Amino acid sequence: MFTGLSAFPLTPLTNDSLDERSYVGLIERLRDARVDSITALGSTGSYAYLTHEERRRVAHLAVRHAGSVPVFVGVGALRTSHVLANVEAAEEAGASGVLLAPMTYQPLTEDDVFELFHTVTFHSSLPVIVYDNPATTHFTFHPGLYGRIAQLPGVASIKIPGSPNTMHLEERVREMRSLVPDHVTLGISGDANAAAGLSAGCDAWYSVIGGTLPGIAQRITHAAINGRPGEAASESERLAPLWQLFADFGGSLRVVAAIAEQLGLASTKSLPLPIQGLGPEQRARVAGVIEELGLGT
Amino acid sequence: MFTGLSAFPLTPLTNDSLDERSYVGLIERLRDARVDSITALGSTGSYAYLTHEERRRVAHLAVRHAGSVPVFVGVGALRTSHVLANVEAAEEAGASGVLLAPMTYQPLTEDDVFELFHTVTFHSSLPVIVYDNPATTHFTFHPGLYGRIAQLPGVASIKIPGSPNTMHLEERVREMRSLVPDHVTLGISGDANAAAGLSAGCDAWYSVIGGTLPGIAQRITHAAINGRPGEAASESERLAPLWQLFADFGGSLRVVAAIAEQLGLASTKSLPLPIQGLGPEQRARVAGVIEELGLGT
Repeated sequence: MFTGLSAFPLTPLTNDSLDERSYVGLIERLRDARVDSITALGSTGSYAYLTHEERRRVAHLAVRHAGSVPVFVGVGALRTSHVLANVEAAEEAGASGVLLAPMTYQPLTEDDVFELFHTVTFHSSLPVIVYDNPATTHFTFHPGLYGRIAQLPGVASIKIPGSPNTMHLEERVREMRSLVPDHVTLGISGDANAAAGLSAGCDAWYSVIGGTLPGIAQRITHAAINGRPGEAASESERLAPLWQLFADFGGSLRVVAAIAEQLGLASTKSLPLPIQGLGPEQRARVAGVIEELGLGT
Repeated sequence: MFTGLSAFPLTPLTNDSLDERSYVGLIERLRDARVDSITALGSTGSYAYLTHEERRRVAHLAVRHAGSVPVFVGVGALRTSHVLANVEAAEEAGASGVLLAPMTYQPLTEDDVFELFHTVTFHSSLPVIVYDNPATTHFTFHPGLYGRIAQLPGVASIKIPGSPNTMHLEERVREMRSLVPDHVTLGISGDANAAAGLSAGCDAWYSVIGGTLPGIAQRITHAAINGRPGEAASESERLAPLWQLFADFGGSLRVVAAIAEQLGLASTKSLPLPIQGLGPEQRARVAGVIEELGLGT
């Protein structure tokens, strides 16, 4: 289940409240595209900004509208007891797994993070995806910690960050494989490196663009997984102008939100303040890339 | 009001709930020591880990037990609407000011952070302390942004991070003075650099140890502010073993919590999980330093 394309939808807001209509639209779009899984409330789904009640509601909406597509739910929070409450809400919603990032305010030690994963796997029978995203959590997993956590019963997958250097990525995947049990899948994130990551042996792509533009993410995934790395690479290369927007505009979130807004999948200003989203000139560049790459079709 | 020693108490937990008895004890200790102000719910007060209701309760307890000592309240949160709710709770509690850090999960732009401060100063008449703490927020204030924010009506003070290099600190304070209006005070944080910061011209010390060990923080503050920089420096130098614990054990929070627990000011395991606090060997070193420096008297 923790293989192929896992699509990370946005959680659009409107006037600081959940935009449920847009959210259901995004989920149904992913259901219709038949992505391999949906991960609700990832970083792209703004989990860190939402209240417990909002997160509970989003988990329910995602499962209810995903049809037969399995739904994983992000449960990260700064405090362990809040994580456990989110896990419980994900279970009640009917999630097929949970995604857990070690969010930090005070820096955490390796033992702090190990105990967090231990506590969650002890309290829940849902499979856990270990979410390694140092750009947002500011926690760096060292190889030995991956190994310790991956031994915990219930750990199903590890979401590793992309690397701008494909050579490093291949070494990284090889090293990870030697550290974690065979039943634990490896998923690449960092969309620009997804083709390289899948071709280097990752089993899954935890994908930001997959949540909003599932078709183009599926083309890359299918080519890479079905042994056509050249095709995956050239499809990814074709999207270079999109990856450049991610690089220029401080990451993927603001760009993908602008794309969703531009395509009418979310209303304007769909991100939680203080994140203002892109300005008019940046949005014009996004619109140009949508046009150039045919992302709206 | 935003001058002298502002003491940052811990917010001790017990079994994942507020330990109100210990908290009131800490506040009364600060009241009796006659610190210049108390900042409740700073980073040391674990604000980022607490629910809105817990924060409301802590703000009330702090004001109720502080006597005539003014109380500032940390209001930071990842989402602007949550910050505003915390500001409202601080107003209701009778706070004399609020402390606002630009917490991040997704990286914020300068404009995002400016608008956050603009929104808060627009909605509240309480004075605002700008809380620059890149070790926890991962947001770096550039000098121009300080200048823009300090012009906002209501901004009363800026809490700047310490620097291990005293020369840099003097330059920094001089540069800041040229950027911000005269009525905006500058406060040093990073306890090991407090004597140097005050002697370099800072008006206030936003102090971690002041929240638990007010006497020793007052000695440094009074010496520096009353024109005895040599005395302030030598008192700070005497505390070198304490600063070394901060450096060795990942910052001040775990060490100060261990000190409070050791002195009976909080029960054991007073920090919010996943922060486990110091291990037995580390605590033994803390106990040695308490003994050596006479911190318990």
